[in-house]
Amino acid sequence: MSQTKNYPPVSYSDYLKTGKLLELQSPRSLEFGKEAHEELLFIIVHQTYELWFRQILHEINSILGIFNQSVVREEEMITVVSRLSRIVEIQRLLVDQVSVLETMTPLDFLEFRDMLYPASGFQSVQWRLIENKLGLRPKSRLKYNAQPYHAHVNPEEQKLLLESENAPSLFDQVDAWLSRMPFLGAKDFNFASEYATAVKDMLDADEANVRRFAKGDEDLQRNLKSIEDTRAVFSSLLSEEKYKTLVEAGTFRLQHRSIQAALFILLYRDQPIFGLPFQLLTRLQDVDELMTTWRYRHALMVHRMLGTKIGTGGSSGHQYLKAATDQHRVFGDFFNLTTFLIPRSRLPKLPDSVSKRLGFHSP
Amino acid sequence: MSQTKNYPPVSYSDYLKTGKLLELQSPRSLEFGKEAHEELLFIIVHQTYELWFRQILHEINSILGIFNQSVVREEEMITVVSRLSRIVEIQRLLVDQVSVLETMTPLDFLEFRDMLYPASGFQSVQWRLIENKLGLRPKSRLKYNAQPYHAHVNPEEQKLLLESENAPSLFDQVDAWLSRMPFLGAKDFNFASEYATAVKDMLDADEANVRRFAKGDEDLQRNLKSIEDTRAVFSSLLSEEKYKTLVEAGTFRLQHRSIQAALFILLYRDQPIFGLPFQLLTRLQDVDELMTTWRYRHALMVHRMLGTKIGTGGSSGHQYLKAATDQHRVFGDFFNLTTFLIPRSRLPKLPDSVSKRLGFHSP
Amino acid sequence: MSQTKNYPPVSYSDYLKTGKLLELQSPRSLEFGKEAHEELLFIIVHQTYELWFRQILHEINSILGIFNQSVVREEEMITVVSRLSRIVEIQRLLVDQVSVLETMTPLDFLEFRDMLYPASGFQSVQWRLIENKLGLRPKSRLKYNAQPYHAHVNPEEQKLLLESENAPSLFDQVDAWLSRMPFLGAKDFNFASEYATAVKDMLDADEANVRRFAKGDEDLQRNLKSIEDTRAVFSSLLSEEKYKTLVEAGTFRLQHRSIQAALFILLYRDQPIFGLPFQLLTRLQDVDELMTTWRYRHALMVHRMLGTKIGTGGSSGHQYLKAATDQHRVFGDFFNLTTFLIPRSRLPKLPDSVSKRLGFHSP
Amino acid sequence: MSQTKNYPPVSYSDYLKTGKLLELQSPRSLEFGKEAHEELLFIIVHQTYELWFRQILHEINSILGIFNQSVVREEEMITVVSRLSRIVEIQRLLVDQVSVLETMTPLDFLEFRDMLYPASGFQSVQWRLIENKLGLRPKSRLKYNAQPYHAHVNPEEQKLLLESENAPSLFDQVDAWLSRMPFLGAKDFNFASEYATAVKDMLDADEANVRRFAKGDEDLQRNLKSIEDTRAVFSSLLSEEKYKTLVEAGTFRLQHRSIQAALFILLYRDQPIFGLPFQLLTRLQDVDELMTTWRYRHALMVHRMLGTKIGTGGSSGHQYLKAATDQHRVFGDFFNLTTFLIPRSRLPKLPDSVSKRLGFHSP
Repeated sequence: MSQTKNYPPVSYSDYLKTGKLLELQSPRSLEFGKEAHEELLFIIVHQTYELWFRQILHEINSILGIFNQSVVREEEMITVVSRLSRIVEIQRLLVDQVSVLETMTPLDFLEFRDMLYPASGFQSVQWRLIENKLGLRPKSRLKYNAQPYHAHVNPEEQKLLLESENAPSLFDQVDAWLSRMPFLGAKDFNFASEYATAVKDMLDADEANVRRFAKGDEDLQRNLKSIEDTRAVFSSLLSEEKYKTLVEAGTFRLQHRSIQAALFILLYRDQPIFGLPFQLLTRLQDVDELMTTWRYRHALMVHRMLGTKIGTGGSSGHQYLKAATDQHRVFGDFFNLTTFLIPRSRLPKLPDSVSKRLGFHSP
Repeated sequence: MSQTKNYPPVSYSDYLKTGKLLELQSPRSLEFGKEAHEELLFIIVHQTYELWFRQILHEINSILGIFNQSVVREEEMITVVSRLSRIVEIQRLLVDQVSVLETMTPLDFLEFRDMLYPASGFQSVQWRLIENKLGLRPKSRLKYNAQPYHAHVNPEEQKLLLESENAPSLFDQVDAWLSRMPFLGAKDFNFASEYATAVKDMLDADEANVRRFAKGDEDLQRNLKSIEDTRAVFSSLLSEEKYKTLVEAGTFRLQHRSIQAALFILLYRDQPIFGLPFQLLTRLQDVDELMTTWRYRHALMVHRMLGTKIGTGGSSGHQYLKAATDQHRVFGDFFNLTTFLIPRSRLPKLPDSVSKRLGFHSP
Repeated sequence: MSQTKNYPPVSYSDYLKTGKLLELQSPRSLEFGKEAHEELLFIIVHQTYELWFRQILHEINSILGIFNQSVVREEEMITVVSRLSRIVEIQRLLVDQVSVLETMTPLDFLEFRDMLYPASGFQSVQWRLIENKLGLRPKSRLKYNAQPYHAHVNPEEQKLLLESENAPSLFDQVDAWLSRMPFLGAKDFNFASEYATAVKDMLDADEANVRRFAKGDEDLQRNLKSIEDTRAVFSSLLSEEKYKTLVEAGTFRLQHRSIQAALFILLYRDQPIFGLPFQLLTRLQDVDELMTTWRYRHALMVHRMLGTKIGTGGSSGHQYLKAATDQHRVFGDFFNLTTFLIPRSRLPKLPDSVSKRLGFHSP
Repeated sequence: MSQTKNYPPVSYSDYLKTGKLLELQSPRSLEFGKEAHEELLFIIVHQTYELWFRQILHEINSILGIFNQSVVREEEMITVVSRLSRIVEIQRLLVDQVSVLETMTPLDFLEFRDMLYPASGFQSVQWRLIENKLGLRPKSRLKYNAQPYHAHVNPEEQKLLLESENAPSLFDQVDAWLSRMPFLGAKDFNFASEYATAVKDMLDADEANVRRFAKGDEDLQRNLKSIEDTRAVFSSLLSEEKYKTLVEAGTFRLQHRSIQAALFILLYRDQPIFGLPFQLLTRLQDVDELMTTWRYRHALMVHRMLGTKIGTGGSSGHQYLKAATDQHRVFGDFFNLTTFLIPRSRLPKLPDSVSKRLGFHSP
């Protein structure tokens, strides 16, 4: 295209700085004697991880910027969803990339492992930033050898990490955005009470069936107990008080109003206006699931490479990593929320006045 | 949940009919003497392909049903996009599945290949149905041994195939849906003419630059020629007449109005109302790309298994398959369309009256 | 090829029995009223799983047959390794296939979930067979609702499961094969004692360094303690007595002689004769890792679909599944074994007499 | 481990040089005004490609070094196979990585494409080195705008490329290694003549059957013709003269003796001594297939990003890339070779004297 005349020409290698890029691999084994063939792989696997982490941070930062406004416009929501989808696509690659590292055998690794002391993947600042910016909070982190997770990084990096702890995370911003959802308590429609009625009707019908078809008393009691449990589970969502105990127990983290909004979106996702919010919640689940899957595959790989060797810090690496897999989940609420769904056929019908506001203008 | 009492109980194996399912693998080598170990793999790979094809057809049929209405509502478009996404996810699996078949070596295959005569993957009715329903038309099919593609299937299957040829395909329906797009020629905004102006301005500016900065006459002439070529490319879209020649040459297949609508969507995809249409076009590209990728991987695999052996029908299998890879693409228009995009900074600004109609009511 | 004349001709659809295959999908929602669109996906995902399970069993059975001989010949070991590689390739597909099921949302699932009672994936007989034949033993299974894992399957299937419990598993056979390894205690080379010496030399050198370079007493004591721990870890492998306590604690399961043989293979894998045994151990790790990864992805998916809903049997499905992920590993020994590796530079040199027996005749 | 005391300590970020690594992304759009959000993705995708190319070159160079000896020992062949397997694992990642780049839409790309002129992926020196070192020769390269493929790279890079053209490639070395295979013409076994006899017997039996069971003259003639064609195909391998015409026609590239050796390995791969050579040939096919698949996916992606836009050099990028997909294959011989396989049941039995030399000493 002719308008390119305005920009100074650039070559592939200058643009991508391949000269410098390909000078950044310095095997320690080469420095200290004889190169261990597999050390280059070890370096390149980690460098590509860091490059992808940079890209993930780029996307998260842009999404945080969008949510950091009082109003998120529709077209921006499209952008948020497509950037989360990109993160998901990158995460798939990160998980598969573990298989590449596993072509190095433990014995290959031993050839240079002793030269890496005390470097550790725990020192990846970008990975910690990703966790913090998604919404992992320091108190939720699994303790590792009684040291803060940001020990052993330099002061500048530590500052970045502390800032990311204190700034609103993606979790916080989605929570706030959900809590502002305007449809929950319109004057002509109260979601919580309509939903409570639907659940009650469903469970009453169940109970009637149970009483009618029970095969003996034991069967009856077991089934009644099951219905009672189900009522308890549902009621916890409807009562702000009971919900608070779920939050205190660590079962949920979202605000009460936010979890109702999220539930509303999941239940009425066919409404045009919920198309994108539904995609947003789904992508957040995808991101969370793939963070978790990556942690798990990583833990298995460490187990394979090191066995149960006592780590440089004195505890078993792979057991810590496995424990962190679940503990470090951020968007678990959207998984647990599924508990509260009811079949579409039981959904309270939205009044026209609400339904209309959830659609587009007809053109 | 207690309401399950209404349905008769069912076990895993009854539900999935695993008993019958696992009886449907009958290696010919077993029947005719000594079982070739790899024949079961060959059967199961193809049976899982057929099961996935069934699922893909299920999704395509439901999408055709939705488009087969005079108006496609927003909430239905969400459904269309998510079902196309499911097809894409299945296609990724189909491509990866080729690697499983490739664990069988050519010599393993020779152990039972002679017993399969004259069976051929060309006889997969479901695959042909998928192609037809997406929009591949008989005249576009690569000829194979001068026989129609539906030779060698039974009359009932042939009927299904002919019906699918004659019914509106997904391509047809998307074409029709695009051609009905109401925003192209509003009284206060004419897309084609605004776009033509934008392109002309862009190229005029380029030409001025070229004349100003030319390093000698040869350089000037080459650059002017390049601008002239670019003008020609763009003008073919703006003139229904010129576009017709592109259609006749097989470069495009969409109606002139539809391709303008598609271009409009791609260019103004940030408008809320184009969020889903943009996702639709993207998913169609994904489906097309993965159909093509599967064909290509399949052709490579056949090359690997059979070499250049003269096939049962007298021609080289893998060369036919490779030729068909490109020839059988259906949604190439949405790839070629990219030719006509211009940078966002050059986009004609939509008048408020149009822009407003492309947004949601504010709640 | 002309020799095909001997076999009766067969068509693609007759060979693959596609007619019957595509009749085996019977959505309950269709039977009981209105078809839930996603139920077909649910059925097909599970049917393809069962077909792949059948293939995996086909490979495992053939491998068991090979090991079920007093001597496993080299060419058979090639077959074992390539069939394990095939299982690995299939497992990769099974893990990825979870993403296809996840295109179904929890609300879609609720449309027909109540109709499936009391069917459960726990009733997949083939999956249980795979676990048993690989070597999972009943006492190692995580208890589920105080019922045996084979409750709720029919008597014939139960018989199959019990047989598979009692027959030698792949684990048992690999254990026996390793224990027969002839190189461990030749008259001119005693692996255990050579290895003990190598470890002692390595740790003595470490201790000398520690004493020389210690920065104060605290540093010295910590480092001496670390060396002491390392000595203890290694000694447990060298003493049959101490190893027994590791077995009793559940850390290891292989016989003492077998674990030494496995270690010998890993350490001297460059010897030609260990090429295939080393590939065998690596593939067993791959199989184990992918079984585990599949369980984990499956647990995440169940969490996503059902939240923390109380399952039909009264306990949380996804938490059980997560707990089983680690508990049900079979070849963990080959991961834990890595603990005992030492760098190549520390390896005792094999005497020529042994080394010669580990090579090929020169042709 | 205590012996680490010998090496100076290193941190994660110093080891991986993350500081410098994460400074190498300089979006042109940022430099020239407003950052285009997707440019970072574009840079990082290409930088990770270059890092992986470096790793692939590291593996190829080490394999070339091993083959660059007069004798390749068994244990080195294990190393060759496992390093080729690593390349395959990396290539799988490279193919999947295309999906990440495709999350950038063509319009996103247009935001900064004009700033990249005249940079082009054709300038990736490492990719060209990979092609050359595998065995792609300059005369086999598809011509691009009448310029040599190494135009536009700097003199130092050009020197590297020319050296790699002239040095023995992996193809050359495998060819030489095959041609040295000692088993083809032992005094007690002549592979070519035994194989010729086996093929003749097979086809004579076929002809007898054809004559006996012919349904009329037309059927007879067609079947006789088919047998005649098959004889011709097989004879081309057995006659050095006829084979030469296949080489001249570009159908084959290996030496006549090498292709017989490769055939011998494929046919008798169950012999212990052929275990690794068979794995070698299989991995070379995998590498070739994935190079090709990557090229194809890349061509589709370029089509998607640019449509049929006239490229900076004046020709359509994606059509060139598609044409190169097949033209640039290196190990096609091992695919075409499959043409000459015969069923195991037809294999000439190896005399004991040969068979014995193909096994291990019994320990």
